[in-house]
Amino acid sequence: MEMVRLNPPAELNMPIGEAMFSQRAIRRLDPDRPITDKQLKIVLDAASKAPNGANRQGARFLVIRDRESIAAFGELYHEAWWAKRKDEYGWTPGQDIPADSPFKMAALLADELRQAPVVILAFSTGGMAANSVFPSVQNLLLSARALGIGSVLTTLHPTVMDLVNEMFGVPADADFHCCIPLGYPRGNFGSTQRYRTADTTYWDRWDSPPPWAD
Amino acid sequence: MEMVRLNPPAELNMPIGEAMFSQRAIRRLDPDRPITDKQLKIVLDAASKAPNGANRQGARFLVIRDRESIAAFGELYHEAWWAKRKDEYGWTPGQDIPADSPFKMAALLADELRQAPVVILAFSTGGMAANSVFPSVQNLLLSARALGIGSVLTTLHPTVMDLVNEMFGVPADADFHCCIPLGYPRGNFGSTQRYRTADTTYWDRWDSPPPWAD
Repeated sequence: MEMVRLNPPAELNMPIGEAMFSQRAIRRLDPDRPITDKQLKIVLDAASKAPNGANRQGARFLVIRDRESIAAFGELYHEAWWAKRKDEYGWTPGQDIPADSPFKMAALLADELRQAPVVILAFSTGGMAANSVFPSVQNLLLSARALGIGSVLTTLHPTVMDLVNEMFGVPADADFHCCIPLGYPRGNFGSTQRYRTADTTYWDRWDSPPPWAD
Repeated sequence: MEMVRLNPPAELNMPIGEAMFSQRAIRRLDPDRPITDKQLKIVLDAASKAPNGANRQGARFLVIRDRESIAAFGELYHEAWWAKRKDEYGWTPGQDIPADSPFKMAALLADELRQAPVVILAFSTGGMAANSVFPSVQNLLLSARALGIGSVLTTLHPTVMDLVNEMFGVPADADFHCCIPLGYPRGNFGSTQRYRTADTTYWDRWDSPPPWAD
């Protein structure tokens, strides 16, 4: 395959700090506001620019636009999600999950995925590891944010991978990494809560705090 | 640990497209131009904002500033790099590597690392996987780029991990992910070559091209 050098798209003009500091998981996507092919090219071009081992570029992105395919895929996702909760907790599909449960948001996504305008599945070929795929994925998510498009990084339960691979003709030597629904948010972007870097950064030695720690 | 909401630092004002499309591996770092603590806080704060599984935030960054530690660490890296090449190809340290070898650039880094102004090692705790660490790492690299600071994503040979862990007091339950030297570039940022996304993107089905393919 031929390689090219690309100039930055004019649309990616948001200050990088604004994009990074307002990136958050968007699970409620607007089914009626389409994402254009041009926008998808921009976020995929951005993904291609991320670092990867020896520039072997093994990441591959499967973009699902077809409404019926997304509905069928979303159905699979929903079934697998609830099957896992049933195994673990005896929950039944549609069960009212406590608001403070860490699964509350994930259950919402399981409901919403069927009507996402776009779903992107990230794979790698040639045995390329996650460390050469997720920098690309983060470029994709950040550039989507810069275009006002919401997304959430999720995964698929191993039990459904055979069905998903069959559904989309994915070959056996492609390794699945993550699932990225995309769409305009119903709701807002906004800040996320994180630990202070004073607590997650060490200075010259493990457990030794950085200069900005109190 | 307490969680906080952070505003974007004013310094991260580069358009996101410019940062992404001019990010490239910078292996030749200026040893005489220091990186400030404030800059390090900015890139680490940016790293903290990336998505991660269930917001468990298991990524930990060990920042090495101490000159003697970097020299000793760089020595280890250099020895391990050449030991691996000797095993694989019978090469000896300092050997003139052909300019077209994929190892030419890696050998340069093995030479340069000893004098990097800063080296950051990324770990995770709690068994957090690479998919919850590398989005943070990419935020760190992109925000460094936005500040004019060069970096390169590299790894460590498993044979030296015990020595590195001992050198910096890293506990046994911390998983190492990557090594990130940081410094102002001797040389320039610039565009990288990549495959066309028309060739690495599939549309609704594996191997089916996107609309922007010729």
